[in-house]
Amino acid sequence: MNEVDGRKRVIIEGVSPEIDAGRFPIKRVTGEGVVVEADVFADGHDAIEARLLWNVQGAREWNETRMESLPNDRWRASFETPELGMMTYTLEAWVDHFLTWRRDLVKRIEGDQDLGIPLKIGASHVREAAGRAAGADAKRLEALAVELESVRAAGPELDALLEHEIGPILERWPDRRFATRYGRELSVVVDRPRARFSTWYEMFPRSTASRPGRHGTFRDAERRLPYVASMGFDVLYLPPIHPIGTTNRKGPNNAVTANPGEVGSPWAIGAKEGGHTAIHPELGTLEDFRHFVEAARSHGIEVALDVAFQTSPDHPWVEEHPDWFLHRPDGTVQFAENPPKKYEDIYPFYFESERWKELWEGLRGVFQYWIDQGVLIFRVDNPHTKPLPFWEWCIGEIRREHPDVIFLAEAFTRPRIMYWLAKAGFTQSYTYFAWRNTSWELRDYFTDLTRTEVREYFRPNVWPNTPDILTEYLQHGGRAAFIVRIVLAGTLAASYGIYGPAFELGEHLPRHAESEEYLDSEKYQIRTWNLEDPRSISELISRVNRARREHEALQSNDTLVFHGFDNDQVLVYSKTNRERSETILVVVNLDPYNTQSGWTSLDLETVGIAPDQPFQVHDLLTDARYSWHGPSNYVELNPHVVPAHVFRVRHRVRSERDFDYYL
Amino acid sequence: MNEVDGRKRVIIEGVSPEIDAGRFPIKRVTGEGVVVEADVFADGHDAIEARLLWNVQGAREWNETRMESLPNDRWRASFETPELGMMTYTLEAWVDHFLTWRRDLVKRIEGDQDLGIPLKIGASHVREAAGRAAGADAKRLEALAVELESVRAAGPELDALLEHEIGPILERWPDRRFATRYGRELSVVVDRPRARFSTWYEMFPRSTASRPGRHGTFRDAERRLPYVASMGFDVLYLPPIHPIGTTNRKGPNNAVTANPGEVGSPWAIGAKEGGHTAIHPELGTLEDFRHFVEAARSHGIEVALDVAFQTSPDHPWVEEHPDWFLHRPDGTVQFAENPPKKYEDIYPFYFESERWKELWEGLRGVFQYWIDQGVLIFRVDNPHTKPLPFWEWCIGEIRREHPDVIFLAEAFTRPRIMYWLAKAGFTQSYTYFAWRNTSWELRDYFTDLTRTEVREYFRPNVWPNTPDILTEYLQHGGRAAFIVRIVLAGTLAASYGIYGPAFELGEHLPRHAESEEYLDSEKYQIRTWNLEDPRSISELISRVNRARREHEALQSNDTLVFHGFDNDQVLVYSKTNRERSETILVVVNLDPYNTQSGWTSLDLETVGIAPDQPFQVHDLLTDARYSWHGPSNYVELNPHVVPAHVFRVRHRVRSERDFDYYL
Repeated sequence: MNEVDGRKRVIIEGVSPEIDAGRFPIKRVTGEGVVVEADVFADGHDAIEARLLWNVQGAREWNETRMESLPNDRWRASFETPELGMMTYTLEAWVDHFLTWRRDLVKRIEGDQDLGIPLKIGASHVREAAGRAAGADAKRLEALAVELESVRAAGPELDALLEHEIGPILERWPDRRFATRYGRELSVVVDRPRARFSTWYEMFPRSTASRPGRHGTFRDAERRLPYVASMGFDVLYLPPIHPIGTTNRKGPNNAVTANPGEVGSPWAIGAKEGGHTAIHPELGTLEDFRHFVEAARSHGIEVALDVAFQTSPDHPWVEEHPDWFLHRPDGTVQFAENPPKKYEDIYPFYFESERWKELWEGLRGVFQYWIDQGVLIFRVDNPHTKPLPFWEWCIGEIRREHPDVIFLAEAFTRPRIMYWLAKAGFTQSYTYFAWRNTSWELRDYFTDLTRTEVREYFRPNVWPNTPDILTEYLQHGGRAAFIVRIVLAGTLAASYGIYGPAFELGEHLPRHAESEEYLDSEKYQIRTWNLEDPRSISELISRVNRARREHEALQSNDTLVFHGFDNDQVLVYSKTNRERSETILVVVNLDPYNTQSGWTSLDLETVGIAPDQPFQVHDLLTDARYSWHGPSNYVELNPHVVPAHVFRVRHRVRSERDFDYYL
Repeated sequence: MNEVDGRKRVIIEGVSPEIDAGRFPIKRVTGEGVVVEADVFADGHDAIEARLLWNVQGAREWNETRMESLPNDRWRASFETPELGMMTYTLEAWVDHFLTWRRDLVKRIEGDQDLGIPLKIGASHVREAAGRAAGADAKRLEALAVELESVRAAGPELDALLEHEIGPILERWPDRRFATRYGRELSVVVDRPRARFSTWYEMFPRSTASRPGRHGTFRDAERRLPYVASMGFDVLYLPPIHPIGTTNRKGPNNAVTANPGEVGSPWAIGAKEGGHTAIHPELGTLEDFRHFVEAARSHGIEVALDVAFQTSPDHPWVEEHPDWFLHRPDGTVQFAENPPKKYEDIYPFYFESERWKELWEGLRGVFQYWIDQGVLIFRVDNPHTKPLPFWEWCIGEIRREHPDVIFLAEAFTRPRIMYWLAKAGFTQSYTYFAWRNTSWELRDYFTDLTRTEVREYFRPNVWPNTPDILTEYLQHGGRAAFIVRIVLAGTLAASYGIYGPAFELGEHLPRHAESEEYLDSEKYQIRTWNLEDPRSISELISRVNRARREHEALQSNDTLVFHGFDNDQVLVYSKTNRERSETILVVVNLDPYNTQSGWTSLDLETVGIAPDQPFQVHDLLTDARYSWHGPSNYVELNPHVVPAHVFRVRHRVRSERDFDYYL
């Protein structure tokens, strides 16, 4: 009883957003803002005043916003997130006797009560406020108290006094002696907009040489940039660009041994030429790399690097930092294994080393090095096989200096771990999207991602394929399957990526049946791609990406809503922009083999259409336009033509000159 | 990085049960136990060992229970709650290299790998454990390490060594250097069983005189005990028994003034004879009261008192403790009001007084006084109009000394506040049950109460009527309505109560149309009840209460499940005991006017019946038995006979002598 003041009567709880009792920050991008809600209540019937407090992290003072009272003791207010970095927020609320008095006075007047004592009580509230107030306000309040006491009856004079004189001044001097401060300060990471909305293209630079069989260089890769830009990608992600180990190097198709001249896997990082901060000599020099990054930027493309924390046996660190590796009783370094499988071309780091701090610093240094070379986006390979607390520390340290850096977690693992990595700092995350094919699976998964607390910290970056993932659906579904998957990826998620040119060229042969590995995978050999192949879907990809660029609705996930369709093979969903002025409605035939048709059952309110209002749907893929009306509309999709509609919903507007058009 | 050891690789989160990040305890009764689950995971593929730690609050050491691994990184263990008071629990988990090594060794043997180095590594784990171990274990482990190293091949010798020799000892000496302790210690309030399962009867002792018009006494009330006991109630709750104020005393039917001889409302507490610790002279003496409490106990009934923290203007505290009341500018004490309504017979306490601590202590003293007189159950009047933090403090203080005290919160207010009071310490809570009449309302409300986190702290005590609540349903539905409501109350909730004899005698006239107040309410006058009225449903009530007493399934709420019925006027639900050996299935016709019929769609798995197994349902209200089969069975309920079935589900068993009977 001695610790707290029992007169603090307001309770604040149920604050949202709040992740794990404030253990982790929520995520926003600049300009996005945060809407905060909380349960705020007290005993009895007194009026409550609640304020949202917010500021950039570490600021001396709070900014305050009055909260609005919603039904059922819920309160709401919001604040803007204008700048990169961390912000914090909390709440304060109190029982406000003056507000209570004003509210009750109205009822007393309505009930025709004598106002003598009530007005005296009101005057004492004003007088107390005068004691709290400074300067002119204090003097003025003293005078107003006298004036209030001298009022004889209800009427315009009293109303004006309260409304225009006393009210506005008193709002500045509430009695906060017994205010309750919420027990936690909550955090927001504010990222740049690309953290939320990004369109990725993964490409092996060594496969970009113009002449078949040659090892591509950054100069070659530069010539590929207009092609990538023309499809509308804004992040170009390169697999590791470092020297590749020779000891136990793998051959094509993951052969246990490599023949001389075989290039090996870029993820076997490190050779005598250097490790995680060196460049594979066959790709070029650091100068070439920087030139490449600049060239990409001039095409509106940011280069993302792969960071894979593991080494080949030839990595310089194996000699320089023996403590960073686990040694076996025979003195050899412990290679990677998942018994009985062995990966003798790869050494993992030993994170339980006595020198774990030095190791952590060393790894952080890798990010810092490439940041210094102008790279601000990293795709982190298998973060779930390194200690989870390391990532929270490492990303926190980097972002303190560089809040514009984006980390994408490539953690294809169990959901708890994927979510934890996102909570602990990863800006974006790979997902299970590649394996979600039926309408039920897609609805269920994207509802989890966009309609639960997960959306506050986990930003899905969905990939229909990667160099490790050639799904059964793509292996067998033909061209339609590739179109279906890119339309889904590009419209379900604000961030998505493809591994190309394999994707747009429809590369679909697995190493063997039941494998998700590509035959002749670029992971182990150089490939030459015919970008001019008439079967390429690059033109369709560019249309999807243009729709994304031109429509804010597709640039976030918060407004995703699934609609009904009377045929399970067809998935229907929509997204709306923040102002609800723009709706994109997507209809996809998930069956890549057969024409499917049926009737929509649209949630028209979500789409922003009145039940009796005809509207137009304008397909951004084909430019076709259809007149629709009401929730139920017929759709038929032939996978051998285009298996999807990406509709811009257009409202009918009657012009002044009395003809209809669609907006 | 300096604060934490980065080698603590395990994450523990998502602990359940856990209320508001451990801010509030969960509730259990003795013998009930707690099942704890958590998400426990780490990077990579190493084996994890997790332990539940638990003990009585304040104990020096933790008891430990190994947790079992469930799918999706969930872990579970449980502990018992044998004694009254507070217990605490938390978790610890670590990456266990020895367990990992053992698991991998099996795979290596299956993969026919050379075991030379793996066995050396195993021996080093055993040797390290020897370093941690004490006494004989240490010596033995040293020897076992040598033995393990000398093994040449897989086989029975190695299996036996690991299984019977090394394993059991190593389990006692795990390497917990890098163990993660969950960041919070969570609490459990352990109550006595009556906190969960109780059957209440509210009665005005002043209405128990044998001669009409006389003021009943505790001696009169004692003569009523066999009647109450015969119906099967185990808590007898009395409205305030204190002296009643005379200033502004209310007359019958809440008349603004009372005539001489009119008894007033017991909630206008305090007169010159005393206040909250005095007894109204017309009821008898303290001695009489104690005698009454003892007499009740001999009938298996506990007496519960009403604690209403407010006073009449005549309460001695008004003079003794002027600081406990708010004074108006004219020097008078502020009476209760809800403008423009005034309640001039009632003074509220002034909890924002400078002397709030003294007031808190004074109020706590009221409970203490009656505890000293042998009362251990309190029904607290309108706790939501006193500062919420007061209750957390007051109940905590009382229960520290008297963990057997039960507090029932009479807070008919908004849900957040009701739930908060329960979290803050109230043992049981009044509910919205009285106003939930349709099958949809009842399903929805009881699903919230029993299937969400709410069930961990909010114990519903449901009342079909109270002296303040005569619902429309009871006013108009006749005898059937009373039966429907008591069957629902007694079988949906483990704790319920009625205000009698009004309830069993079907008292249903309101003070005026649209009022929920009783005409000639006992709150303001003495009533004489004809307990012999043939229309009384006391016999049916005793059957409901016997079913509750005899069937563990009805003594908790956790297993409540709603089943389907093809007629919305009929509600079907079941409860099962902990061992799932006993199921009660209830079918209620909610329409008190018409016969309703239809077909069940039972969730047979929940009921513990195989789809092809015939079963018997035995009505505990009428003793009728029906043979049922499968999920779909016909039911017809005539409200003018009995509007409900309370079935004991009986499985068919084939006896050894080859005839069937039902268990």
